[in-house]
Amino acid sequence: MERLYIKNLNEHFDEEIEIQGFVESVRNLQWVQFVIIKDVTGKVQVTIEKSEEANKELVEIVDNLTVDSTVKIKGKLLESPKVKLNGMEIIPTSIEVTSKASELPFNYKDLNNVNLDTRLDYRFIDLRNEQNACIFKVQSCLVKYLREYLYNNKFTEIHTPKLIGAASESGSEVFEVKYFDDKAYLAQSPQFYKQMAMASGFDRIFEVAPCFRAENSNTNRHATEFTSFDLEFSYINDFNDVMNLEAEMLTYAFKNLKEEMGEEIKEKFGIEINVPTLPFPTMTLKEVYAELKTRYNYETEEQNDLTTEAEKLLGKLAQEKFNHEFVFVTDFPAEKRAFYHMRDENGILQGYDLIWRGVEITTGAQREHRYEEIVKSAKEKGLDEDVKFYLEFFKYGCPPHGGFAIGVDRLTMLLLSIPSVKETQFLFRGPSRINP
Amino acid sequence: MERLYIKNLNEHFDEEIEIQGFVESVRNLQWVQFVIIKDVTGKVQVTIEKSEEANKELVEIVDNLTVDSTVKIKGKLLESPKVKLNGMEIIPTSIEVTSKASELPFNYKDLNNVNLDTRLDYRFIDLRNEQNACIFKVQSCLVKYLREYLYNNKFTEIHTPKLIGAASESGSEVFEVKYFDDKAYLAQSPQFYKQMAMASGFDRIFEVAPCFRAENSNTNRHATEFTSFDLEFSYINDFNDVMNLEAEMLTYAFKNLKEEMGEEIKEKFGIEINVPTLPFPTMTLKEVYAELKTRYNYETEEQNDLTTEAEKLLGKLAQEKFNHEFVFVTDFPAEKRAFYHMRDENGILQGYDLIWRGVEITTGAQREHRYEEIVKSAKEKGLDEDVKFYLEFFKYGCPPHGGFAIGVDRLTMLLLSIPSVKETQFLFRGPSRINP
Repeated sequence: MERLYIKNLNEHFDEEIEIQGFVESVRNLQWVQFVIIKDVTGKVQVTIEKSEEANKELVEIVDNLTVDSTVKIKGKLLESPKVKLNGMEIIPTSIEVTSKASELPFNYKDLNNVNLDTRLDYRFIDLRNEQNACIFKVQSCLVKYLREYLYNNKFTEIHTPKLIGAASESGSEVFEVKYFDDKAYLAQSPQFYKQMAMASGFDRIFEVAPCFRAENSNTNRHATEFTSFDLEFSYINDFNDVMNLEAEMLTYAFKNLKEEMGEEIKEKFGIEINVPTLPFPTMTLKEVYAELKTRYNYETEEQNDLTTEAEKLLGKLAQEKFNHEFVFVTDFPAEKRAFYHMRDENGILQGYDLIWRGVEITTGAQREHRYEEIVKSAKEKGLDEDVKFYLEFFKYGCPPHGGFAIGVDRLTMLLLSIPSVKETQFLFRGPSRINP
Repeated sequence: MERLYIKNLNEHFDEEIEIQGFVESVRNLQWVQFVIIKDVTGKVQVTIEKSEEANKELVEIVDNLTVDSTVKIKGKLLESPKVKLNGMEIIPTSIEVTSKASELPFNYKDLNNVNLDTRLDYRFIDLRNEQNACIFKVQSCLVKYLREYLYNNKFTEIHTPKLIGAASESGSEVFEVKYFDDKAYLAQSPQFYKQMAMASGFDRIFEVAPCFRAENSNTNRHATEFTSFDLEFSYINDFNDVMNLEAEMLTYAFKNLKEEMGEEIKEKFGIEINVPTLPFPTMTLKEVYAELKTRYNYETEEQNDLTTEAEKLLGKLAQEKFNHEFVFVTDFPAEKRAFYHMRDENGILQGYDLIWRGVEITTGAQREHRYEEIVKSAKEKGLDEDVKFYLEFFKYGCPPHGGFAIGVDRLTMLLLSIPSVKETQFLFRGPSRINP
């Protein structure tokens, strides 16, 4: 039998129906009981007249009914204009309590006075909050459209291993795993394997998967495990192709997300999804620092990378200068970046950061695909032994390629103006949080 | 600039074009050079007349060109009926070698005489084999349609943590992770967290993510890390709802996969995608063993679970009895199954195995959602302390629910008649294989 959702009840007036859901509230009055049932689509009132002899059993059930229990209700659906909730009510013939709830540790409908740690300890209750639950519907929908854009553009989804034999990019921030009588490590990113796919001739690939970082940092943007949306594609002319693809992909996804969930997002979060216009503006790092000085009198010793403060001001700058929420920053010096990024003859990185609303959401680049060059770069960083297996990928021919990664949790955080990734991860993982 | 793929060249005769790809072969004759270029969509011939003065530089490039190097070719595309390969050729004006290939360790076009370990050591070369590469296009396409079915049926995708605080289901087969000054473990499955989502009222969720098993077993079906397609949904009436959803989902995905890639699969693997008919046949475990005895004279001491041999024969039985490749087996005794599976008053498991072509691809079930019952089940297995955090999920109301998991690698293996998951994982992970 097709399940009947509450939002579709209005097609079934005067019929015998069956619904299931959580008990939202119980009002037990002298002559009548009102039970509000909630499912994922809406709420409906169930009305039990106490005086009716036939209701004796039902009244007893409702007398003992606790909020957040789950029930299966059979009965007749009536159109009742006097009922405020959707102008309808169910007159039940049976109420089956499918699970009974103990008293909840906090009221998830009003989380203002519940501290975040308590909420995360009881995350399964915290997520009953309608706004919190909606975060994950939005995230799912957003990722659906990011993928759809890539399917439409000939990308193949791959699944690269998270257990790896060598502590790749930099030993210090890698989790170590006991692997039978040996050691393994958890992948910090699929970077090396995305590029392997390029060497294998896979042309265009993406992956949505967990990444692991053993960083002991406690910011609103970092987690020891997070979901990364990664892609890589071949035969680019330069890193402009990578920036263009990212801008198009985000625009496509935001547009479709807005169509599917714009109303619900407005209702639950009070915000409007802002579909960006193409192309996204671009500035060099030098231009950024020059303008931050002129406009906001901001100066810093760090001229080779964006400081957190500079990112923040850049969000403002992008709005004022370009009327845009996004801005690409290019022309970073190579020294601060991973060895696998391509650089030009002047050591300028052939890549970019993408800043959205004053927060970095992506580092993207053309990669070094030429064997001699990548070996040289690895040596310069003293990594040549650690990444030996990776360097092999480039020895037998590999197309020019580039790519980027977006943290799904961070993207969701910015999209919905949530203060921290702790709330946009289904279950946050940090240095001191590994449960539940 | 939009990239030009080889398969679309026939729209560009007599134009100046640019293509990129791997060098498939070089034939250097006395008067002429033929280079075959391959991209992900096809192959094309490039012809260089040695006698033409203007070609001097090109001839020199081709003299030094190694197979599997990558090139960017500019030139004029001619319709040339005498050219066997697609009746066209490119007369180049420039050839840029974008990466130069060293001599390959083996010929990936004929893998018959290359042993599997060598292939896996050089997986990035092994995957250049056209059939091998196609496995992952098929897998991506299959998963796309599995997801599409779920999106169409109100499912939300979630991302549950792989780093967990407790060695959940059974300590012995769990990988241990050094987690700062503490220990963590790698999730064997998202089972507990899928169910947490049900307790949170998420209604219907799925996840496609890695699972980790520290099993020291070396079969063609097992890996220490694999991609699991997991789902869970609420307000089921019983486990028949779970079986029906799985059968419908697979049928939907196979049908659409066939439409999109049926021809290519036939060409590359010589097989026809068989879209199953609904409903899938169902037998009880008792019926299976009775018929295996009658039909094939097969007997075993094991009457409480399916042996590998019984699974295999059951594939044959399903064909002969139902003319179907799939068969659900129900009514397993509870003792052999996880404590979270629901059982009826006689201890019969409210779940099933799904056998496809004689191999188990799924265990699915209604789950125990009632707090007192799940606590009792956990105690019976001596797990109540280990899974304490999980038992909490059911204390505050939780809808009746069920779900299942499918191993993506195993599903791909069976779909394409590949001998082992070692070949359907992008990079296989086993007890003695953690590289590259």
